[in-house]
Amino acid sequence: MPVLGYSAALEHFGPTELIRWCQESEQAGFGGVMAADHFHPWVPQQGQSPQVWPWMGALGLATQKVTFGPGVTCASYRYHPAIIAQLAATLAVMYPRRFWLGIGTGEALNEHVVGGEWPDAPERLERMVESIEIIKQLFTGKKVRYSGKHLRMESARLYTRPETPCPIYIAASGPKTAETAGRLCDGLITPAAPQEKLKTLIESFEKGAREAGKEPAIMPKLLQLHVSWADTYEKATRYPFTRRFRRLRATGAPRRFQGAGSHLDRS
Amino acid sequence: MPVLGYSAALEHFGPTELIRWCQESEQAGFGGVMAADHFHPWVPQQGQSPQVWPWMGALGLATQKVTFGPGVTCASYRYHPAIIAQLAATLAVMYPRRFWLGIGTGEALNEHVVGGEWPDAPERLERMVESIEIIKQLFTGKKVRYSGKHLRMESARLYTRPETPCPIYIAASGPKTAETAGRLCDGLITPAAPQEKLKTLIESFEKGAREAGKEPAIMPKLLQLHVSWADTYEKATRYPFTRRFRRLRATGAPRRFQGAGSHLDRS
Repeated sequence: MPVLGYSAALEHFGPTELIRWCQESEQAGFGGVMAADHFHPWVPQQGQSPQVWPWMGALGLATQKVTFGPGVTCASYRYHPAIIAQLAATLAVMYPRRFWLGIGTGEALNEHVVGGEWPDAPERLERMVESIEIIKQLFTGKKVRYSGKHLRMESARLYTRPETPCPIYIAASGPKTAETAGRLCDGLITPAAPQEKLKTLIESFEKGAREAGKEPAIMPKLLQLHVSWADTYEKATRYPFTRRFRRLRATGAPRRFQGAGSHLDRS
Repeated sequence: MPVLGYSAALEHFGPTELIRWCQESEQAGFGGVMAADHFHPWVPQQGQSPQVWPWMGALGLATQKVTFGPGVTCASYRYHPAIIAQLAATLAVMYPRRFWLGIGTGEALNEHVVGGEWPDAPERLERMVESIEIIKQLFTGKKVRYSGKHLRMESARLYTRPETPCPIYIAASGPKTAETAGRLCDGLITPAAPQEKLKTLIESFEKGAREAGKEPAIMPKLLQLHVSWADTYEKATRYPFTRRFRRLRATGAPRRFQGAGSHLDRS
């Protein structure tokens, strides 16, 4: 049974209005929130880029039951994966069974801030895999140490943890990362794409999952769609951001989507 | 007029109980919360160490008017200062005039996690000064770039910012850092110490402040005290943590301090 979620565009809106829109989206029946983790907006004109981690701390308290997580965070440049593990574990303790950790390979837009060269996709995937290994080891609660090809962690232990670790979902738009997601983690996040591409992606994810002895059918697949909703087609297509910011992932207040649930068959 | 605050020992207690105790402390008349930023507890027996940044995001929503901040964060090892600037600016936007940023030189206990050697005090002070320079530059809202002796930042700009930057307080227990605090920042944080030592510290802070053309008398000085409060002296001194964890900074639920305000003349 699909769940309709709200994509909180923290690379575009202020933190207080986004909390309010998430409350409204929950009241309107949305079941989840995916919160962007950016340092910079996609384009300066968007004008905002609040920090997602304290924002999610407030979100959990401001809402009743929506599941939520960063969509997605990169745990291998700006943040050390140990920090991400601690952030995720704390939110999972504060909001039981509601928090999930979305991980990706990062965007230069945000990650370049801390310096260093920006590697090609294969190295970014290697770094992401190492960051997930560190996070999963810390989630066990054991004292761990890590020395990978790219990342390193001295002896560390995570003290505040939920009974069951929060799920980890990986953002993928190519088959190799999707397969890694299936093998290493608990779910897949991907943006809207032509059906043929999505089919290949899901198949790769399922292949990875089966190789690791998991049942892919019950593993969450989060699809991020751009939606412009209005009571007429004309008004919906007039929405300015779809033209101005081609890379914009989520737009507008959920107030505008209030009837969206009843139109699921059309969308 | 002194303000009595509550020291939220995130290196010792779980996040949910600490939120509740902060709510109770506010109801009992406490005016502020200082929240520890640890990766590890001081000693494993303390058993908890939730992440302070999402916790503060929830704290602001769970309370009405207490001022709060990390006491203290280190922006020069585990976290890149750009991340701390974004975290602080977002909380300052979400909770206007309530958030302050407490900065220190770090503890190996927490900072060693991300690897690298642990330098001596002089270098740690240099790194702290550089981290504050980066944070203050980002707080202006301009596009900035930084290349110091220790820290580096590629071009970055903070989009979500309060109208007036949040105050920055520095943790100091020696005269050199205290003077730096007065010169560079807006206030001083220090743990309890013999009166003579505190006098020297405050004088150093005031000297630094005056050199920078500031009026030290109106700049906040946060003193962190260990308190064991009960209705009899015997019960208060029986409190186990004061014996077991000599380095423990703050203990117990504010419930135990409910009458503390009325005893200020005795403390």
